[in-house]
Amino acid sequence: MPRAVREQQMLDAAVRTFGSRGYMAASMDEIAELAGVSKPLVYLYLNSKEDLFTACIRREARALTEAVRAGARPGLPADRQLWSGLAAFFTHTARHPDGWAVLHLQARTHGEVFAAEVAAMRAEIVAFVTQLILAAAREAHRDPDLREAEVAGLAEALVGAAESLADWANVTPGVTARQAATTLMNFAWAGLGDLMAGRHWTPPADGGDADVPEPQSEVTAPVR
Amino acid sequence: MPRAVREQQMLDAAVRTFGSRGYMAASMDEIAELAGVSKPLVYLYLNSKEDLFTACIRREARALTEAVRAGARPGLPADRQLWSGLAAFFTHTARHPDGWAVLHLQARTHGEVFAAEVAAMRAEIVAFVTQLILAAAREAHRDPDLREAEVAGLAEALVGAAESLADWANVTPGVTARQAATTLMNFAWAGLGDLMAGRHWTPPADGGDADVPEPQSEVTAPVR
Repeated sequence: MPRAVREQQMLDAAVRTFGSRGYMAASMDEIAELAGVSKPLVYLYLNSKEDLFTACIRREARALTEAVRAGARPGLPADRQLWSGLAAFFTHTARHPDGWAVLHLQARTHGEVFAAEVAAMRAEIVAFVTQLILAAAREAHRDPDLREAEVAGLAEALVGAAESLADWANVTPGVTARQAATTLMNFAWAGLGDLMAGRHWTPPADGGDADVPEPQSEVTAPVR
Repeated sequence: MPRAVREQQMLDAAVRTFGSRGYMAASMDEIAELAGVSKPLVYLYLNSKEDLFTACIRREARALTEAVRAGARPGLPADRQLWSGLAAFFTHTARHPDGWAVLHLQARTHGEVFAAEVAAMRAEIVAFVTQLILAAAREAHRDPDLREAEVAGLAEALVGAAESLADWANVTPGVTARQAATTLMNFAWAGLGDLMAGRHWTPPADGGDADVPEPQSEVTAPVR
């Protein structure tokens, strides 16, 4: 069997083991057995548990990013674009729950090196979503002056909401990928939709937040 | 000086050091010096670097949870409630950037024990937000049958979006707490608002997502 095929089998077994057991509890013995190879061969090909985990993160990050890119349809109306992108995202995370657990739970919990791998993928997705929102807003011609910073904030909000919902959907019985995507559309679309139509939500004139009690000392940054 | 006061000084110094340097790079020498005490006294009071970090997580989690609870105003209309809650959240995270970094970056990056502390706080906030949304939806009398699972999903989306925006606001020059809160209101309110008025976003009849290309094998869960 060619090395590349063997390596993919090892990575399949490793993603499943890291995702279901957690990084610390996963053993190389178990991964080798699940892959149907000897443990020395895993070390020969992937070098160490750390390197194997890094290879898993990179493969799963690439697969997720490609699924989201493939789901986005630049030609569609903005709501359909958002829907197809979200549907692709939640379909992928539901089909690959161990891959999602590796990316969103395990990689971020076991040290800064692994966390940095995932942060790079996340930054790429946020940049991609930012461009989609910007293009849709400009296409709409209703709010061509939507500020870049505002769009970046909207993309952060959308990505954060999607990550949180994917975690939730994967551990909540009976929640399908389609339901998770529909929930996020209900949450986000009319909001983004109103925004692109130039209908902003406006904070109350009195601030409304001025008398929020703010306890304790330790002011480490200027109040903004 | 009473022990309780000394301990708070040590925790202030520890939060600042862990938040700005990261858990691994932070040294007990530096924390003791910043607190103006001897290193043996830090160990005497807080026992170990691990225990000191846990104490920081608990204190910052309690402060954040209290700030969000204090910001919610059950008597206000739903949009004003959401606004005041979000304003309280982003004001707190902007005023305590090191505390937020401890909770949302450091605690989740350095092992399952610390991550579990933060997960407990997050679950409490999600439950609180779920109840607020449920109460507002029932108050509105327009969608009294809003499913509990749908509401739980909306709360997950809102909390995930807020976490993501707080990270972003704290590292993006010129983004104030008020702007972050306004961005999230623009993103979320009209969405939640439409939902409470019974105006759901409906997926396209043809599915629209059915032909999303879904690469590779490794199907570890039934496709949902």
